[in-house]
Amino acid sequence: MTINLKNFLSSNKSSSKMGDFQDLKHIEGLHVSAVSADLYKNGRDDLSLFYFPQGSNYAVAYTKNSIVSESIVWNRENTKNNIKALVVNTKNANTFTGEQGLNSLDDIAETLLEFLKKFESENNYEKTKLKDILFASTGVIGEKFPVEKIKESIPNLISNLRINQNKIIWLKIASAIMTTDTKPKVAYTEIKLGDKKIKIAGIAKGSGMIAPNLATMFSFIFTDADISSVVLNKYLKKVLSNTFNAITVDSDTSTNDMVAIFATKKIKIKKLNTISSKEALKFEKALKSVCLELAKQIVVDGEGAKKFITVKIINSETIERAKKIAFSIANSPLIKTAVAGEDPNWGRILMGVGKSGEKIDPKKIIIKIGEFVVAENGKISENYNEAKLKEYMEWDAILIEVDLKQGHEQYECYTCDFTHDYIDINAHYRRS
Amino acid sequence: MTINLKNFLSSNKSSSKMGDFQDLKHIEGLHVSAVSADLYKNGRDDLSLFYFPQGSNYAVAYTKNSIVSESIVWNRENTKNNIKALVVNTKNANTFTGEQGLNSLDDIAETLLEFLKKFESENNYEKTKLKDILFASTGVIGEKFPVEKIKESIPNLISNLRINQNKIIWLKIASAIMTTDTKPKVAYTEIKLGDKKIKIAGIAKGSGMIAPNLATMFSFIFTDADISSVVLNKYLKKVLSNTFNAITVDSDTSTNDMVAIFATKKIKIKKLNTISSKEALKFEKALKSVCLELAKQIVVDGEGAKKFITVKIINSETIERAKKIAFSIANSPLIKTAVAGEDPNWGRILMGVGKSGEKIDPKKIIIKIGEFVVAENGKISENYNEAKLKEYMEWDAILIEVDLKQGHEQYECYTCDFTHDYIDINAHYRRS
Repeated sequence: MTINLKNFLSSNKSSSKMGDFQDLKHIEGLHVSAVSADLYKNGRDDLSLFYFPQGSNYAVAYTKNSIVSESIVWNRENTKNNIKALVVNTKNANTFTGEQGLNSLDDIAETLLEFLKKFESENNYEKTKLKDILFASTGVIGEKFPVEKIKESIPNLISNLRINQNKIIWLKIASAIMTTDTKPKVAYTEIKLGDKKIKIAGIAKGSGMIAPNLATMFSFIFTDADISSVVLNKYLKKVLSNTFNAITVDSDTSTNDMVAIFATKKIKIKKLNTISSKEALKFEKALKSVCLELAKQIVVDGEGAKKFITVKIINSETIERAKKIAFSIANSPLIKTAVAGEDPNWGRILMGVGKSGEKIDPKKIIIKIGEFVVAENGKISENYNEAKLKEYMEWDAILIEVDLKQGHEQYECYTCDFTHDYIDINAHYRRS
Repeated sequence: MTINLKNFLSSNKSSSKMGDFQDLKHIEGLHVSAVSADLYKNGRDDLSLFYFPQGSNYAVAYTKNSIVSESIVWNRENTKNNIKALVVNTKNANTFTGEQGLNSLDDIAETLLEFLKKFESENNYEKTKLKDILFASTGVIGEKFPVEKIKESIPNLISNLRINQNKIIWLKIASAIMTTDTKPKVAYTEIKLGDKKIKIAGIAKGSGMIAPNLATMFSFIFTDADISSVVLNKYLKKVLSNTFNAITVDSDTSTNDMVAIFATKKIKIKKLNTISSKEALKFEKALKSVCLELAKQIVVDGEGAKKFITVKIINSETIERAKKIAFSIANSPLIKTAVAGEDPNWGRILMGVGKSGEKIDPKKIIIKIGEFVVAENGKISENYNEAKLKEYMEWDAILIEVDLKQGHEQYECYTCDFTHDYIDINAHYRRS
């Protein structure tokens, strides 16, 4: 996906219609449910269950923040290589909740097992065990975890399980995991391998690193392919760097971030478990496209964001260097406010390149804003045209490109501008 | 200096009166001059000369940005261990100006030498040579360096040299090095060593890392003590970490930052050149107080700043860890917007501690806002009182303290809040 339309964001920011979203299909071997546990006290869905009757392989990447949600602690201590249930709650991050937070999850797990038991025996499904459960929590940090409300909602959660998903169900479930997001985030693709079709459906929640206490990014991706957990983990690691790890809103990392991919094992293609096969590369590419689409939707829905910014560093000696310079630019409040002000202030981009501390040759680098070269040969470009640049800066999606002229590696990351709305939302968050 | 007064900033932000500033004294062996070279086209002083008739030892620390001003390039290539003249211009950073920028400095140096020659022979001063000159430039990046205007102003600059400084002269010269600063920054102290008195006078300009293309922090400090350049460098390195390197406004580093200390060699106290002597420690303490005072003035005058924030990390295993965590908090837009909104949002402080990636024990750390413990034992404090905290958040100077409970080291850094005014100034800077 290339985002370079003049009015990309304004059209995306307007009220959501069904037609704005991709048509996500059913993933065989997955049941979903979303209900209100009254956590928000306004009737919205805030508790979700993803249930895999025949189990699912999975891989997960957690936040690198050294303070993490008790839900992550629980998963790390209890959950095994394949699972049967993922329970997601919003409103409360279950972070810095002490023993109350961790014990709550034991309680909820037991309740879930108890009610699933009846459901599973009725349907002749294998019994879910404690180690088959994964938790994900997002919301306010440090508040008592609402264990009772969640436990009370479990019978309802199970009785609402949908065996088939369609577009409406996917949007309902994607909405149930939101906190301050203004719209659900969904992405879907499918690939043909021989006579078989593999589906990949993903949902995400963001407002991500920019949202106050709710600072959390979730993404859950589901495929019907039969891929082992070990191999899923390899796929996930390969695509993360250029998708979910390539976005930044304000450089803050939440205590709850979690990206997980689940494989329901329904479509069996042996080659998918050989990471360098032609089939595996095709799957990796499809998975990456779903992750990138979700990651970009998170940035577009960044709080206060009026413009989408792509920062591309090319011809670097190493990917690592390109990445450091890209984020040095993308995390700079000076550059983000300039973009908000539609000011082609290339001196700040230069500052951003330099403050990365990476080895560069100021006489060689070429800085472009959109298609326009603004600086080269150690000075302002001879073709610099402020009027044309100002016109470009009015676009909704801005490209900043730096050519280091030192090698053949590149890295691209994504961010949004810094606006009054960002300040408003984050300064007065707890009052609203 | 401890900043913890309720209305510290509002009183400091009001229009400056002479009485608001310290009374800086004359430094023997230093002549100063400030004139208008018409760089701003509004008559304000924008070109300064610091002249040392008998020469001066000096030490300097430059920006760590890998793209630097041509003035810094020139200094590194030409200037020796002691100098006779420091030339400072504002409005143009002489950065990314290519050969034109570097050649301009050769031109200006030659003109300066030519006009100084007459002045020096009249006064029986030793002749200044090319290697005795230091340059400092601050202002817009990438614009042609105004070499002609500066050259034309040199006769005027020399004829305006003041042999004696008083408070008014110091404020005039501190104003001449400003860019977007709203007021001059000055600090002064003196110490008695035996029957001798050592003076230390300093000036600075900031708006610092938060000002757009003008992103530049300068500080020039002058003492009449006879200290070698090598030892001056040791003093400078010792005090930087807890003063100028302990401030952040928006995590952006300019291409021009420069902190220099000059010693005119008039007062001879041999022990000052022995870095661990009692006298040296007294001097170091005095130098640190001047640097810290100037550094804090830069933060207080940060663009858009309404509140001064001190972040203090105590009981760390290492200083390095305390420093990383302190800056992880101080650079967080989420925390800075919360302070702007007067919201005691301690979850964000927790997030800031964690995202540093440093080893901490969430069950042990204690977080305080002002005198109030907000979190301990891995959860919200039992004495948490939102009403009292909200009252405290209305103060102009806010203290955030994190006790890591793992060692005996500590680090303190300083920043300001993130406001609408910051966005306005930086989004629309080039229009105004």
